[in-house]
Amino acid sequence: MKIKILAIGETDEAAIQTLIEKYAKRLKKFCHFEFKVLADVRRKQPIEQQKKKEAELFLKHIKKNQRVILLDEKGKTYSSVEFSKWIEKKGVQAESDLVFLIGGPYGFDSSIYELSHEKIALSKMTFSHQMVRPFIAEQIYRAFSIINRLPYHHD
Amino acid sequence: MKIKILAIGETDEAAIQTLIEKYAKRLKKFCHFEFKVLADVRRKQPIEQQKKKEAELFLKHIKKNQRVILLDEKGKTYSSVEFSKWIEKKGVQAESDLVFLIGGPYGFDSSIYELSHEKIALSKMTFSHQMVRPFIAEQIYRAFSIINRLPYHHD
Repeated sequence: MKIKILAIGETDEAAIQTLIEKYAKRLKKFCHFEFKVLADVRRKQPIEQQKKKEAELFLKHIKKNQRVILLDEKGKTYSSVEFSKWIEKKGVQAESDLVFLIGGPYGFDSSIYELSHEKIALSKMTFSHQMVRPFIAEQIYRAFSIINRLPYHHD
Repeated sequence: MKIKILAIGETDEAAIQTLIEKYAKRLKKFCHFEFKVLADVRRKQPIEQQKKKEAELFLKHIKKNQRVILLDEKGKTYSSVEFSKWIEKKGVQAESDLVFLIGGPYGFDSSIYELSHEKIALSKMTFSHQMVRPFIAEQIYRAFSIINRLPYHHD
């Protein structure tokens, strides 16, 4: 199974980077995992134009056979166990090449919504696009720990 | 307004500590904020007994006039804007001394559920009791930034 996370904008803090790397390292046991940061689009332009530029960047890193999942506040919410079942199902279907997209501070361009297959919300709350990064990495690790019955998740 | 977070168990990573401190520092402009870690209860005992010991620790740090809020998966979920309204309301009511409790890996003892006033879930997903710490600190900061109309939160 392949799981890639694409995030717009440099990780601005060493602490965030450290947490992402911790889970990325643990995930290598369970899947082909990659966390890729795409360069920041410069901010001195209208928001819609910025989102369009970000969309172009995303598109360069998405392949046709990949399943595109947006981390989006308006997405579906899952419990960790439900999310692990969702991942497990993808693994046994012909949808085992997943790309999760984390947008910039203003969310996604409409073209990204159109090409995406699913939307997932980690929370009803808004987290910064920086904080979302370790969150999703931890949840994917938690999902694999549930699938593999490791003693990481307590119900 | 006074906001205290009590968390069981040492923060085991410098990265988590760094993130907590970042928001704690920013929050000092808006409220009397304190993040307090309570010593770990040793693990070589039955879970129920461990939770009882943790409850005793919590009780030592809770005053009678304080409003006790549990961070609990079964709690109410809020959007960030709803959460900011919740905080704002507490500030103008006679409930402006808040204590948020973050339990250990197995959750709270029943005595803690009994004395608590409210339960809040940051997400349907389970986050580690370590990761919850920067999450709640960021959400409280985000709430005050919404209340004070700072350009931190984008709808």
